[in-house]
Amino acid sequence: MADVIKVGVLGARGKVGAEVCRAVEAAADTELVAAVDAGDPIEALVEAGAEAVVDFTHPDVVMGNLEFCVAQGIHAVVGTTGFDDDRLATLRGWLDSSPGTGVLIAPNFSIGAILMMRFAAAAAPFYESVEVVELHHPDKADAPSGTARRTAELIAAARRAAGSPPVPDATSTSLDGARGADVDGIRVHGLRIRGLVAHQEVILGGVGETLTIRHDSLDRASFTPGVLTGLRGIAAHPGLTVGLEHFLDLD
Amino acid sequence: MADVIKVGVLGARGKVGAEVCRAVEAAADTELVAAVDAGDPIEALVEAGAEAVVDFTHPDVVMGNLEFCVAQGIHAVVGTTGFDDDRLATLRGWLDSSPGTGVLIAPNFSIGAILMMRFAAAAAPFYESVEVVELHHPDKADAPSGTARRTAELIAAARRAAGSPPVPDATSTSLDGARGADVDGIRVHGLRIRGLVAHQEVILGGVGETLTIRHDSLDRASFTPGVLTGLRGIAAHPGLTVGLEHFLDLD
Amino acid sequence: MADVIKVGVLGARGKVGAEVCRAVEAAADTELVAAVDAGDPIEALVEAGAEAVVDFTHPDVVMGNLEFCVAQGIHAVVGTTGFDDDRLATLRGWLDSSPGTGVLIAPNFSIGAILMMRFAAAAAPFYESVEVVELHHPDKADAPSGTARRTAELIAAARRAAGSPPVPDATSTSLDGARGADVDGIRVHGLRIRGLVAHQEVILGGVGETLTIRHDSLDRASFTPGVLTGLRGIAAHPGLTVGLEHFLDLD
Amino acid sequence: MADVIKVGVLGARGKVGAEVCRAVEAAADTELVAAVDAGDPIEALVEAGAEAVVDFTHPDVVMGNLEFCVAQGIHAVVGTTGFDDDRLATLRGWLDSSPGTGVLIAPNFSIGAILMMRFAAAAAPFYESVEVVELHHPDKADAPSGTARRTAELIAAARRAAGSPPVPDATSTSLDGARGADVDGIRVHGLRIRGLVAHQEVILGGVGETLTIRHDSLDRASFTPGVLTGLRGIAAHPGLTVGLEHFLDLD
Repeated sequence: MADVIKVGVLGARGKVGAEVCRAVEAAADTELVAAVDAGDPIEALVEAGAEAVVDFTHPDVVMGNLEFCVAQGIHAVVGTTGFDDDRLATLRGWLDSSPGTGVLIAPNFSIGAILMMRFAAAAAPFYESVEVVELHHPDKADAPSGTARRTAELIAAARRAAGSPPVPDATSTSLDGARGADVDGIRVHGLRIRGLVAHQEVILGGVGETLTIRHDSLDRASFTPGVLTGLRGIAAHPGLTVGLEHFLDLD
Repeated sequence: MADVIKVGVLGARGKVGAEVCRAVEAAADTELVAAVDAGDPIEALVEAGAEAVVDFTHPDVVMGNLEFCVAQGIHAVVGTTGFDDDRLATLRGWLDSSPGTGVLIAPNFSIGAILMMRFAAAAAPFYESVEVVELHHPDKADAPSGTARRTAELIAAARRAAGSPPVPDATSTSLDGARGADVDGIRVHGLRIRGLVAHQEVILGGVGETLTIRHDSLDRASFTPGVLTGLRGIAAHPGLTVGLEHFLDLD
Repeated sequence: MADVIKVGVLGARGKVGAEVCRAVEAAADTELVAAVDAGDPIEALVEAGAEAVVDFTHPDVVMGNLEFCVAQGIHAVVGTTGFDDDRLATLRGWLDSSPGTGVLIAPNFSIGAILMMRFAAAAAPFYESVEVVELHHPDKADAPSGTARRTAELIAAARRAAGSPPVPDATSTSLDGARGADVDGIRVHGLRIRGLVAHQEVILGGVGETLTIRHDSLDRASFTPGVLTGLRGIAAHPGLTVGLEHFLDLD
Repeated sequence: MADVIKVGVLGARGKVGAEVCRAVEAAADTELVAAVDAGDPIEALVEAGAEAVVDFTHPDVVMGNLEFCVAQGIHAVVGTTGFDDDRLATLRGWLDSSPGTGVLIAPNFSIGAILMMRFAAAAAPFYESVEVVELHHPDKADAPSGTARRTAELIAAARRAAGSPPVPDATSTSLDGARGADVDGIRVHGLRIRGLVAHQEVILGGVGETLTIRHDSLDRASFTPGVLTGLRGIAAHPGLTVGLEHFLDLD
């Protein structure tokens, strides 16, 4: 790709898509060449010379979008949900016929959330204890959050791999719910507080010390740096990638 | 009382009593004149000229200790547990016969814990949401902690008195325990982490802002400033006082 | 005033004024009857039957606005800056001629910031150490923030009144600036971090324990609950009031 | 080495050495076979069959201790300070003549502090802003702490390597010291609060989000897990190693 990446946005008039358009326009190394939404012809991407697209649309239309883009050799950075093993297999088939084209499917574009999960899993085998606390606004329907569950699963897996013993807990008398939810042996607590957006803390502890890793998302625009990171890395990652963490050079 | 208060310690060889002895000796305005434990004659207090005692002994012996002290006009600052309404009534009777003598019964000598509860209850009516998180070492048997339960009760009472509506919570799908324990309508979460001592956080939130009040007890000696505050105030509070908060000039 | 307060907003098309309009419209007990900005006739307030106004305008025009409102018996809740002793004296003169009318001048409408300052000052005499940390976005021009300076001044005054000794500090070797700014003997630290809005923490510490009071403002709308509190209380506070804290029933 | 490592402690009657002795005795896979201090013959290590020693002594005697141990093929885990390039070169010379023997020189045995520095440096290139806050008891002589300076240097180096621009800061009016100390372009703030032990926080921020990594050392015993980690890894790391981070499997 050239120094400035020509970007098309699919779902451009949605709330998230509009934020993506603004971020692509604002960055020095990306250029918004096509803003496409329901009803617009997807061929506009080709006419505009888009090298990569960002897709925040809907599970019903995303596969059609990707089939078109991959066939045209346009890279795709995808935040749309609903990818199961069947869909991923189909995608891999299309990509096999279009070598050099990359598709990134990312359930989470928050770089902070990705680093938090990564660091928590890396640190977990060094500590006796670890718990997860997530804090969100009170209009959220599920508890704990998907990110908190995923974090606990990653921590549990890292501890299993390292042969860590179960976390200690001498609780013998307890009010129902006081010790949180149990996710693979890791305790997870969900708080719902007006004024908050999306926050999570992982607390690890050993003899005489604790290590705390906290992520605060204060604004919905916090996912846009992750989308730009995806756009900047996609040409160098042909084929299918699941998870933005593979684009972050952490080792 | 003179400028330097002559203090006797009952239970002086226990873990807590020994800390009290050290603190009384270290402070410029208190003097340790008698260190009494099981087997020692309590009359030593009188011979030593003790003006006030600190009692961290046992529910089985504390009433005998206090009967003796009140009869002798010696003030008492008491951390021993086990005071029910009957015991308090008995104490009041003894104190009626010894005007000018003061007894302070305090379930909690941590000034920080008292301030946290006080501030949380004062702030609670101004916010839509409030939750309590307590964090302790993993050898603790009960969850949530007594202080956390008491804090939630005080918050709930302050909101009832102010006519505050219930805290908002749209949770419809939840893992068991994820939203913590319910104490009078206030959610309380208990974490157990090696390396921690005793910590508590009250998080209050309204439109666009949160207020957090956090108390960290990092060392068991943290109760000694409260004991000294009790000794300094006891002569000015004749009769029975329950709760160190009445000695803190907060209004 | 009736059950629903009829409110006029001055400076209604400014960023802050527009938020005030939204909040007044959203609340069940306030009604927006006039939205006035530069160029609009202020008499619209009278025609609309406004019982109270909110003024977020400019130092150049606020005195004219208030002279009109007070003469008409319209209460005023004022967030505009620039009030010195001369202006306050002039205001008091106008209010003397209009008994029953109230004017609230508030440099800060954040209830959380007010509670933080109040609690910090109340707790400060009970602790050996206290420091203030404020955290803001990196586009802020002044350091420390006005709220942090004011907090430190209030803490210092409370300690002087209580006869507290200076805070301990054995620092003998230091990089320039490492220990923060000195405001009346209290250390204040200013952080500038992208992603943050406006945050402040007061940390107090004594033997073995710390008490932390933290205020997080995550959204500029966080001042609107304070404006509504001002509107609800203004009829009961005739004359001049400086500071929203006088409308909060904290004792 | 066998399943249980036979350990000698040099400086065994010092404050730190005594903690090491306790930790070595308590762990299931280490056995304390010799406790040596000034005046004791170092040959006791050989008689006791020590496979590894821990040295927390003094710069004046540590080189003599290590010359003896390396000559005898006894591994060494060293917390004593004062190692400059000359001393390290001398050590390497001795180790060349004793292949299979390992010496670990570690300025910091706190696993939490090591992970904090590592994670902070790994995350720093992904964020616009980053600052360091360290908090200690008020008897500390230097500000900022050595760990905070080191953390800032590592962050600055990581950002230079990644081509990150300077952190943004629009401060134009400031009280002296308000923005902290400047360490290689990274702001560092030092707080001194009674009741605290040793704590540090690294705050990173980008558009709409922050990531915070915090280490709390609540008890001086917090270095002992790091010493045990050193003992467990030393046989597998012959030659000279500087820094416990090389024994932590983080990648």
